Amino acid sequence: MKKLAIERRDFLKVGGGIVAGAAVGAVGSHMGSGTDLTALASSQGLSGDEASAALQTVVPPGKYDPYYMFASGGHSGQVQIIGVPSMRLLKIIPVFSRDSFSGYGFDGDVDGVIRAGSDPAKSAPLDWGDTHHPALSETAGQYDGRWLYINDRANGRIGMIDLADFKTKQIFDVPNIGSSHGGVFVTPNTEYAHISSITPRPITDNGYAPLERYADLYRGFSTWCFVDRKTGRLVPEKSFQIELPPYNQDLADMGKLASDGFGFLNSFNTELALGQSDKTKDPPIESGASKKNYDYLHVIDWKKAEKVVAAGNFVMRNGMRVVALSVAVSEGILHLVPEPKSPHGVAVSPDGKYIVISGKLDPFVTVFSIEKIKDAIAKRRYQGKDRYGVPIISLDAAVAARVKLGAGPLHTQYDGKGNAYTSLFIDSAVVKWTLGSDSGTTDKPFTVLEKIPVHYNIGHLAIPGGDTVKPEGKYVVALNKWSLDQVQKLGPQHPVNLELIDIDSTPARTLSSLPLGGSEPHYAQIINIDKLNPLKVYAPGTDPATMAKSQYATVAGKERIKRNGRVVDVYATLMRSHFTPEQIPVTVGDTVRLHVTNIESTENATHTLAVPAHNIQVTLDPGEVVNVEFKADRVGSFAFYCAQFCSALHMEMYGWLLVAPKEA
Amino acid sequence: MKKLAIERRDFLKVGGGIVAGAAVGAVGSHMGSGTDLTALASSQGLSGDEASAALQTVVPPGKYDPYYMFASGGHSGQVQIIGVPSMRLLKIIPVFSRDSFSGYGFDGDVDGVIRAGSDPAKSAPLDWGDTHHPALSETAGQYDGRWLYINDRANGRIGMIDLADFKTKQIFDVPNIGSSHGGVFVTPNTEYAHISSITPRPITDNGYAPLERYADLYRGFSTWCFVDRKTGRLVPEKSFQIELPPYNQDLADMGKLASDGFGFLNSFNTELALGQSDKTKDPPIESGASKKNYDYLHVIDWKKAEKVVAAGNFVMRNGMRVVALSVAVSEGILHLVPEPKSPHGVAVSPDGKYIVISGKLDPFVTVFSIEKIKDAIAKRRYQGKDRYGVPIISLDAAVAARVKLGAGPLHTQYDGKGNAYTSLFIDSAVVKWTLGSDSGTTDKPFTVLEKIPVHYNIGHLAIPGGDTVKPEGKYVVALNKWSLDQVQKLGPQHPVNLELIDIDSTPARTLSSLPLGGSEPHYAQIINIDKLNPLKVYAPGTDPATMAKSQYATVAGKERIKRNGRVVDVYATLMRSHFTPEQIPVTVGDTVRLHVTNIESTENATHTLAVPAHNIQVTLDPGEVVNVEFKADRVGSFAFYCAQFCSALHMEMYGWLLVAPKEA
Repeated sequence: MKKLAIERRDFLKVGGGIVAGAAVGAVGSHMGSGTDLTALASSQGLSGDEASAALQTVVPPGKYDPYYMFASGGHSGQVQIIGVPSMRLLKIIPVFSRDSFSGYGFDGDVDGVIRAGSDPAKSAPLDWGDTHHPALSETAGQYDGRWLYINDRANGRIGMIDLADFKTKQIFDVPNIGSSHGGVFVTPNTEYAHISSITPRPITDNGYAPLERYADLYRGFSTWCFVDRKTGRLVPEKSFQIELPPYNQDLADMGKLASDGFGFLNSFNTELALGQSDKTKDPPIESGASKKNYDYLHVIDWKKAEKVVAAGNFVMRNGMRVVALSVAVSEGILHLVPEPKSPHGVAVSPDGKYIVISGKLDPFVTVFSIEKIKDAIAKRRYQGKDRYGVPIISLDAAVAARVKLGAGPLHTQYDGKGNAYTSLFIDSAVVKWTLGSDSGTTDKPFTVLEKIPVHYNIGHLAIPGGDTVKPEGKYVVALNKWSLDQVQKLGPQHPVNLELIDIDSTPARTLSSLPLGGSEPHYAQIINIDKLNPLKVYAPGTDPATMAKSQYATVAGKERIKRNGRVVDVYATLMRSHFTPEQIPVTVGDTVRLHVTNIESTENATHTLAVPAHNIQVTLDPGEVVNVEFKADRVGSFAFYCAQFCSALHMEMYGWLLVAPKEA
Repeated sequence: MKKLAIERRDFLKVGGGIVAGAAVGAVGSHMGSGTDLTALASSQGLSGDEASAALQTVVPPGKYDPYYMFASGGHSGQVQIIGVPSMRLLKIIPVFSRDSFSGYGFDGDVDGVIRAGSDPAKSAPLDWGDTHHPALSETAGQYDGRWLYINDRANGRIGMIDLADFKTKQIFDVPNIGSSHGGVFVTPNTEYAHISSITPRPITDNGYAPLERYADLYRGFSTWCFVDRKTGRLVPEKSFQIELPPYNQDLADMGKLASDGFGFLNSFNTELALGQSDKTKDPPIESGASKKNYDYLHVIDWKKAEKVVAAGNFVMRNGMRVVALSVAVSEGILHLVPEPKSPHGVAVSPDGKYIVISGKLDPFVTVFSIEKIKDAIAKRRYQGKDRYGVPIISLDAAVAARVKLGAGPLHTQYDGKGNAYTSLFIDSAVVKWTLGSDSGTTDKPFTVLEKIPVHYNIGHLAIPGGDTVKPEGKYVVALNKWSLDQVQKLGPQHPVNLELIDIDSTPARTLSSLPLGGSEPHYAQIINIDKLNPLKVYAPGTDPATMAKSQYATVAGKERIKRNGRVVDVYATLMRSHFTPEQIPVTVGDTVRLHVTNIESTENATHTLAVPAHNIQVTLDPGEVVNVEFKADRVGSFAFYCAQFCSALHMEMYGWLLVAPKEA
């Protein structure tokens, strides 16, 4: 066996002239005088701009992208990692959906992440999600490269990914909220991961109420999920919610520096439109929810709420500590500020001083000042209360500026140089404009500097560090929703379209276009890869659920099959190109528990255990232990095999699961 | 409602200076004299080769890739479409695995494709697969752009994708085979789609036999799935199998032109190794299956088999017509040819004259001549029979040449100029060598011309049309199995690595590297996009399962809810930005049947219907109808919504599923 186990290092070869890794940072001394790039570009039909862009975005073999974009996968339920500026899709991390490539949900389900991710009191057993807003964990307002959180827009859940091994470790089905949008956004030291409802939900015991009772029985909830700073896990019993009026709370953002301790949620449908029905003459939601000229920005003092909860001033609702709406009002936790009609994006500036609201039906962005808001609260400069008694701060008392950008402003990111970049959905553009004079800009404050066209209707946009206290600037990635003319001959379903824009140059330049199939990268954060420090291989015998040694870890020579009544425990190992044991004889009806250890210590030496006719596909990275339990309820001879092409003798890496009939 | 429904065309803008589509073929007249590409490349740290490669692979915004690579997704169970030369991932087509992005398996399951894709007599309800070998349908030996077939290596199944809409329409769980490898390969006019077992399976009634009975009770099967040339669907009742000895039949390829009518399957483990067990002193499979110096190429005369089956000389086995091994021998359907030790790849040359076998433990490729094989069969130049009575053609009588390439040759493709390209797994290289003097080469026949290094252990490789009668050459894509130094800081699981190689230049040049996450592109075919002619939108009210008008198609104004006892039929429409109806009131325990029509006719105007707390996520392209049936077994108020960002008022595109308790 050992003789034939070919060590990969033995036959690793490096491409001709392209020394892997070593060429990083090489300067242009290799540029042969014989290379006429201008003539080549010409013969390829490239304009000067196109040729330059190619040279600015290429990451040749063996070199690395300096940034990774962690993008949601939208209703694929996944997270995607895209190299910037090459825009190559480097990794897919399944979160809410099962994935047989990584074995996620087709094995022991890593501590039952997906299974534990649907609360039966709230949800059917779910195996999809609509990932929207990834949130890298932060320390002092900057990405720290430790964990990633992301919401399931469809079902009001949060997934937690450990950036030690880039695997999903936890899904929390948040009580009291259904469809969610205001998540995940983390506080500056990842004290909390925030998620809030987008459509309110009845606060009745059974979660149902007729729409006639919408105003009095439906409620929104702002959820503050406590993060264990050792493990990154969400701790439900240390978390709390704040009850909100039944508006559609939309996007959220967390205060930082000047606004640390506050959370900001905008809203639409403060009209409480219910849509058309046979019984009423109500208009459809899209017009019913667009009647009023103002909706409300929700200003939440979470540090105050934390104290109120600690003092015991909460009610328990479905296992969650909830600050009642009346308490949120009486304790000064919740204030409203009028914001123009049906806004969508809310984005706090790097210094925390400004909260930028984009109203999709308003050509202006509204810039609120946290200083003014705090002052208005202190001086009770209210224009009144809403029907639920929540004080409404006077618009004039809170606004720092209104800046006219164009049609359909949605989201804003920052470059760290005093500039804001706002996406315009309807105009299909990104607008660069200045913040206040205290923001570091040398241009006139609150002024449009540039309008950068993009090909299609843009939703979110992302700048490296663009939502932290220290943006790096350099690029904007436009996350466009359509891609009509960017690809052809792919059938009726088009990919979404990402565009990479160079914002170091003036004017800004579109460098490349990435029509990306299979997902909707809804929102993204871009991190400098220097901030990441993942494992290369697991310590031998690691259970990824605990990151500690598994009690089922097996070493070479200790493989065994143990029968205890109708339960068969198999302690197996995998290495190139061999399963041990190779024959697993059981009897129909047995419960089989496979405890599988990948005993490789070579980086990248991943194996899988695939069992035909069974829905089992386990992927094991070097050092990893996975446990799979199944009932052998099907008589037959099944040739299990490694589905990861691992070595020259990969085809020979198989064995036999023999399920004998009872009479045998 | 209509007033607010914003037409996308109204706000479509085209990027500044980058006119979508129009720039295709533009020559370098835009190259400004101010653009010093050499200086720019230098400042980017690029060598001349790297800069040239960037210019040769870039596809600027609004231009199109001339080729699409249809690549398997390996154990992701999907198919991927990658643009060549940009190497952008343009589309993912789920086949064996559910996918909430496209709604596949989360809706009515498009005619129950996944549900119908597991035969309960053979398999547990499966929702994963291990896609290996995509096969584009062919007419006269060339891709015709109509359908794509792909095998599930794990479970012996074939998926069929319709290239009218790029959706999976059928999964056939092939009887009598478990794990499969020799599929899918189509005959030159797509008469049949071939799939064969890789590990044999007991021919007992219950599919079980102890390994002691391996030689007499286990068998391989070569399956010839009949294709309906109108619909592309596999027709089980017109298909047949040929019983084979219990060797591990590995890769297959179909004859063409000179070898039309034949199929070729190589094999390993003709030793019948079973692996280690407590009872025997057998060696592990990897060495037990590598003892003999020769295994057998299986030469199958499928046209003869077709006649034998038509004459009724078959047995029925689990619903499949099977030509018994003894009949295959007596009728001259099956012959064996010795092939060097544990081969892996078999690849028929464009003219059909040569069959190239790569033995992974042999530094030579063995080139068989169909002319010689036919002659040997006619003259019965046999060296004996195997233990099952199958005649073995003398090696010398069949071989045209043996060409020494290097360590670990696996797979071969052709450039249409008389050259073959063979991957070397162990050497990490692609070798260019010449075929016989009748192949069009002007170089010395059967001679190595060039050894092209790749970064990592390469499995398959793909050339545009490289497995057809008319390869286009131009590029080789190396599908490498590892990517160790091509990416960093991604955790223990690395992406596989694709490399694009320019074979128009001499020497060949590596142009780019694509570490591609989330899948294993195991094998790929590359098609010129001119051969594709998909739908842009569906005709109004189309059911993709039939491509005809659905009986449930609903037009605007005819939306309705009909109750019949405990069954509630909802005829709904979707358009920007509105569901009709917006309120769906039912009672717990009702069976709800949603008949949903996307009434858009604008290209790319896809919507979805996502239902919180339920495992429902339907994606509908323009004109498409989907039916979803579920039991409303959960009391509550659920805000269903569109998960595809479709318009400025996308957030307002939702409605209410109200599941009242019985007493309400």
